[in-house]
Amino acid sequence: MSERVNVAVIGAGRIGRLHAGHLAHRIRGARLAAVTDIRLEASRQCAADLGVSKVFEDYRRVLDDAQVQAVVICSSTDTHASIIKDAAQAGKQIFCEKPIALDLKQIDQALAAVTAAGVKLQVGFNRRFDPNFRRIRELVREGAIGEPHLLRIASRDPEPPPMEYVRVSGGIFLDMMIHDFDMARYVVGDEVQELYALGGVRIDPEIGRAGDVDTAVVTLRFAGGCFGTIDNSRQAVYGYDQRVEVFGSKGMVTTENNTPNRTRLATDAAVREDLPLRFFMERYTESYLNEMNAFIQCIREDKDPPVTGADARVPVVMGKAARLSCEQNRPVALSEVS
Amino acid sequence: MSERVNVAVIGAGRIGRLHAGHLAHRIRGARLAAVTDIRLEASRQCAADLGVSKVFEDYRRVLDDAQVQAVVICSSTDTHASIIKDAAQAGKQIFCEKPIALDLKQIDQALAAVTAAGVKLQVGFNRRFDPNFRRIRELVREGAIGEPHLLRIASRDPEPPPMEYVRVSGGIFLDMMIHDFDMARYVVGDEVQELYALGGVRIDPEIGRAGDVDTAVVTLRFAGGCFGTIDNSRQAVYGYDQRVEVFGSKGMVTTENNTPNRTRLATDAAVREDLPLRFFMERYTESYLNEMNAFIQCIREDKDPPVTGADARVPVVMGKAARLSCEQNRPVALSEVS
Amino acid sequence: MSERVNVAVIGAGRIGRLHAGHLAHRIRGARLAAVTDIRLEASRQCAADLGVSKVFEDYRRVLDDAQVQAVVICSSTDTHASIIKDAAQAGKQIFCEKPIALDLKQIDQALAAVTAAGVKLQVGFNRRFDPNFRRIRELVREGAIGEPHLLRIASRDPEPPPMEYVRVSGGIFLDMMIHDFDMARYVVGDEVQELYALGGVRIDPEIGRAGDVDTAVVTLRFAGGCFGTIDNSRQAVYGYDQRVEVFGSKGMVTTENNTPNRTRLATDAAVREDLPLRFFMERYTESYLNEMNAFIQCIREDKDPPVTGADARVPVVMGKAARLSCEQNRPVALSEVS
Amino acid sequence: MSERVNVAVIGAGRIGRLHAGHLAHRIRGARLAAVTDIRLEASRQCAADLGVSKVFEDYRRVLDDAQVQAVVICSSTDTHASIIKDAAQAGKQIFCEKPIALDLKQIDQALAAVTAAGVKLQVGFNRRFDPNFRRIRELVREGAIGEPHLLRIASRDPEPPPMEYVRVSGGIFLDMMIHDFDMARYVVGDEVQELYALGGVRIDPEIGRAGDVDTAVVTLRFAGGCFGTIDNSRQAVYGYDQRVEVFGSKGMVTTENNTPNRTRLATDAAVREDLPLRFFMERYTESYLNEMNAFIQCIREDKDPPVTGADARVPVVMGKAARLSCEQNRPVALSEVS
Repeated sequence: MSERVNVAVIGAGRIGRLHAGHLAHRIRGARLAAVTDIRLEASRQCAADLGVSKVFEDYRRVLDDAQVQAVVICSSTDTHASIIKDAAQAGKQIFCEKPIALDLKQIDQALAAVTAAGVKLQVGFNRRFDPNFRRIRELVREGAIGEPHLLRIASRDPEPPPMEYVRVSGGIFLDMMIHDFDMARYVVGDEVQELYALGGVRIDPEIGRAGDVDTAVVTLRFAGGCFGTIDNSRQAVYGYDQRVEVFGSKGMVTTENNTPNRTRLATDAAVREDLPLRFFMERYTESYLNEMNAFIQCIREDKDPPVTGADARVPVVMGKAARLSCEQNRPVALSEVS
Repeated sequence: MSERVNVAVIGAGRIGRLHAGHLAHRIRGARLAAVTDIRLEASRQCAADLGVSKVFEDYRRVLDDAQVQAVVICSSTDTHASIIKDAAQAGKQIFCEKPIALDLKQIDQALAAVTAAGVKLQVGFNRRFDPNFRRIRELVREGAIGEPHLLRIASRDPEPPPMEYVRVSGGIFLDMMIHDFDMARYVVGDEVQELYALGGVRIDPEIGRAGDVDTAVVTLRFAGGCFGTIDNSRQAVYGYDQRVEVFGSKGMVTTENNTPNRTRLATDAAVREDLPLRFFMERYTESYLNEMNAFIQCIREDKDPPVTGADARVPVVMGKAARLSCEQNRPVALSEVS
Repeated sequence: MSERVNVAVIGAGRIGRLHAGHLAHRIRGARLAAVTDIRLEASRQCAADLGVSKVFEDYRRVLDDAQVQAVVICSSTDTHASIIKDAAQAGKQIFCEKPIALDLKQIDQALAAVTAAGVKLQVGFNRRFDPNFRRIRELVREGAIGEPHLLRIASRDPEPPPMEYVRVSGGIFLDMMIHDFDMARYVVGDEVQELYALGGVRIDPEIGRAGDVDTAVVTLRFAGGCFGTIDNSRQAVYGYDQRVEVFGSKGMVTTENNTPNRTRLATDAAVREDLPLRFFMERYTESYLNEMNAFIQCIREDKDPPVTGADARVPVVMGKAARLSCEQNRPVALSEVS
Repeated sequence: MSERVNVAVIGAGRIGRLHAGHLAHRIRGARLAAVTDIRLEASRQCAADLGVSKVFEDYRRVLDDAQVQAVVICSSTDTHASIIKDAAQAGKQIFCEKPIALDLKQIDQALAAVTAAGVKLQVGFNRRFDPNFRRIRELVREGAIGEPHLLRIASRDPEPPPMEYVRVSGGIFLDMMIHDFDMARYVVGDEVQELYALGGVRIDPEIGRAGDVDTAVVTLRFAGGCFGTIDNSRQAVYGYDQRVEVFGSKGMVTTENNTPNRTRLATDAAVREDLPLRFFMERYTESYLNEMNAFIQCIREDKDPPVTGADARVPVVMGKAARLSCEQNRPVALSEVS
């Protein structure tokens, strides 16, 4: 366990640079070995900032590099599945940003390649590594609230993404609520059988013209009998709103939003607190670090990653079911789209 | 406006005695004139406690009493509609505990009698007079959160009612969630068009054998585009859980549970607060007083009551729609059952 | 225990009317028998509102009335001691608003009269009956925080009293901090040996010209080794600020201000809560009711009142010591002024 | 501004390793150039972990190194003053952990050397860089609370330091409350003229036998009229307690403790939150990073450091005054010991 794991980051966009920075300096047992990006300039800048000498345009160069043991895939979503297959065949350990693909067949092929190669795959559902949600999961698992009966998730972004993203993202259920579908399975510790989705355009008509909705509520029916609700909005003017609550036979656990400080100001008008942390880069700083630590530790200790192949696939199924439910205004069983 | 309003309380059970006590001493401008109960002993005890001399077994006696201007109907639900009709025909102002009836035709006949007689009718949706929920309503009405997009209500009792009540109450959607249906309309300020209900038996199989559920989630689609979710549980072990949140284009307003005190105890194990107030008699003390104050004030100032005939009827329609939705596992438009 | 206690209220000012209203209707086992006030019109109005027939200008009339068992003294402070003596000699049970007197000799004579007559005396330190502070006291007494080491009290009024009151009240340490001196002894459960006071004029120079301060901090040294601090301000623009914290060997207990509701509004500017309840009539509603309940119960069950003669005397000693300490800028032992 | 600042860390104990790690990887514009420690093994280990080649036993080696522009002094307190003098004479920019010395003459000589050399000196009062306290400072400076009238600081460690530390640290007022003296000046933005200290031994008699106290309360009188209280305990069983409150003519600002997560668990026993972060390494993580960022930025932009020479000296004066006040049980003016 004394050797450091050599890791290449594929894709030097915002999230790729974040992971690269962590791997370079803050993950014990890791070494940032290379950076690749189809925009060579992006990878060069990132590598220069972090003191890395190996920089490539083509990710295949790191797959051919025997010193590289693991890859962190942060390229655009449509490339994930094929890079996973290539990396698996090259025997690399794989961390991939979510989702693997929007197409289930592509996901299945990628997962099959991983299984065949016997490599590890961890998908970037970083929120599982957030201290708030992890604590909820622990308490539920320990039985602190007994049997889960009700789940509530509020998950609202501070502002809509650019329209060019909305047009290709797969829609709110697959680009945004997918995180909440993962969270629902994670904190309840059970699978969803059926869901019902409501969607509307309340924030920006342009989103509607692109065939998407910007406000949505999904009701979940879990196999074990728990019911859940998730709501999403593309625009919470007060900042990133990320709250989870699980209610059960012996109690309830709930979590508040993180704030930049814990001060309260009382004047003759009101008692005020500062707004929640603005967006995911501020709110989930720690979770990105934690998930990469977990990935590197799994490699070094040869353990199974904490986010499995099913964890990668099921939220996509749920996103597709939600979209269908919303279009047809009826409950949809996951088995219909799986 | 100087004269006090003479009020008779019909039905001296728990809620009747509460209203009688308020009318006797705490409502400015009211005078408790009489108490009636089909169990004469109950009304005698109540009247003796409050220094009232007129005590009857038959409520018709107070309808014949010219000095009595208003009646507060707290008898069993199945008697509400006919007493309303009788009281309206006798020209009395009417306060009636919810619901008027479980049958829509009976409700309509009662409301028609009220209209024909030109008397006032206020229904006991006391939660509208709770300082927390009233503040939410005010903020929404003032536009503090802009257009409402999402509503969330958690409404959970500390323990299930007696089985004899469960068997005749009309079920969780009509005996418990009816309050939340009223709350949904009240805080959002709009009408629901369609809903979808999930129900399960998680707490007591006996409730299931009685044909009811004890855990339920309902999703609401409002006419103006707002989506809402309500969850109910018959048993929150930590006490009465009554929280409402409205999210809109310009912000969000949310409310916490009331607690018996605001102390926090930090030890080497945890930071602890005392549990929420146990049940409705403790939690809604102030709202019961406020609603009766409002009723008396409407009489004295000849204004319309703040809870209208529609407010009395629509939640029953919603309860019936929820029951149907739950049985058939499909969204149900209110127009189907109205 | 079945008979109700006949009580006369002496002094029909704001606090007298409050107690009278409670005794008339809300204290089980009590009966408001008479109201007296040197301004006869004030007592007449109060009595009329509450349906009481006995109204007098001279309090001695109720002392002569064999039916009156107890008196509640709410007249001006300078009359308390002599009325207590008269009432004790007349064999009445006594509730007296704080303080008994600003002069220790007068207090001692009044207490001696009470002892000689064998009647009960309860002084109106109502905050002991506030649910927050009572809960702190309970937790400290139960040992939940171990041995008390540190006490912190913040006690700030929303606005200064009228200047005519400031000129005769005895100053901030005797008219305002006296409540906190009582609170300090109550929650810690120990006596103060020495204190040190800082006082300044920060809010209104007129207060300084009247020989008083409007901002003060007092440090307490308890016999058992606990240290305490109390701060007072005549003007907290955000409302009545009443917080207590006790820290000990096994933990800490602290309490927040009461608020009119528990709502939180998040906008793009801040997360806001409404201000604390404005002043003592709103904040301590429940405590006034509780203290009177306790007094009546002590009479009916022939028990000792929960606020003793020492409780009446010691805070005045502390107020005098604080004043001396502030004038001389040195620690003052209570034994110097006792 | 494009060149990175070469920094040597002197002293590779706990805090030295923390700063070294930050300088190596997390401070933009800095480069960790060397590590020195009189225990050579300690500096070797630290340097190896961080990929630094220059490792010395004697700090003078880095003063002679022309490439080193700045030093971060983390050696034992008794060496601070002389290293500052040497470093100043060598023309290095200086960051020094607090305090410079326990002897005022030594402090003055060190500050004089800094002034003579025209180098920068920043002292490690890291709490000024904590987001909570910085926000309080900002709000006070902006006038959000008007003129400061009252300050309250609670500052309690989770457990006492080792006895060997207690014996040489200078006592609670100089090793622990010194941070709070700095905080008091920082948030109020004014100087203290006089103080009064109470100290006791409540936690461990061994601390008393070493001539120190473990529980203390100090009252401050600021030049501008603000009053302040600080309490310290060597042992808060619930964890590190670090709270500040400033009350003024237009409002109040207060801050809560930081916690590892924002979850709340409600069961049939209580509503629980997890304990505050355990100690300074967890609580002040961000502040250590922020203070070093500020130091490097001052060098790069040739600005004055945000913590001045007076900031280094005054808290030591206050610590000495507090000790004297505690011994003599009387208020002590800072001018007596300055």
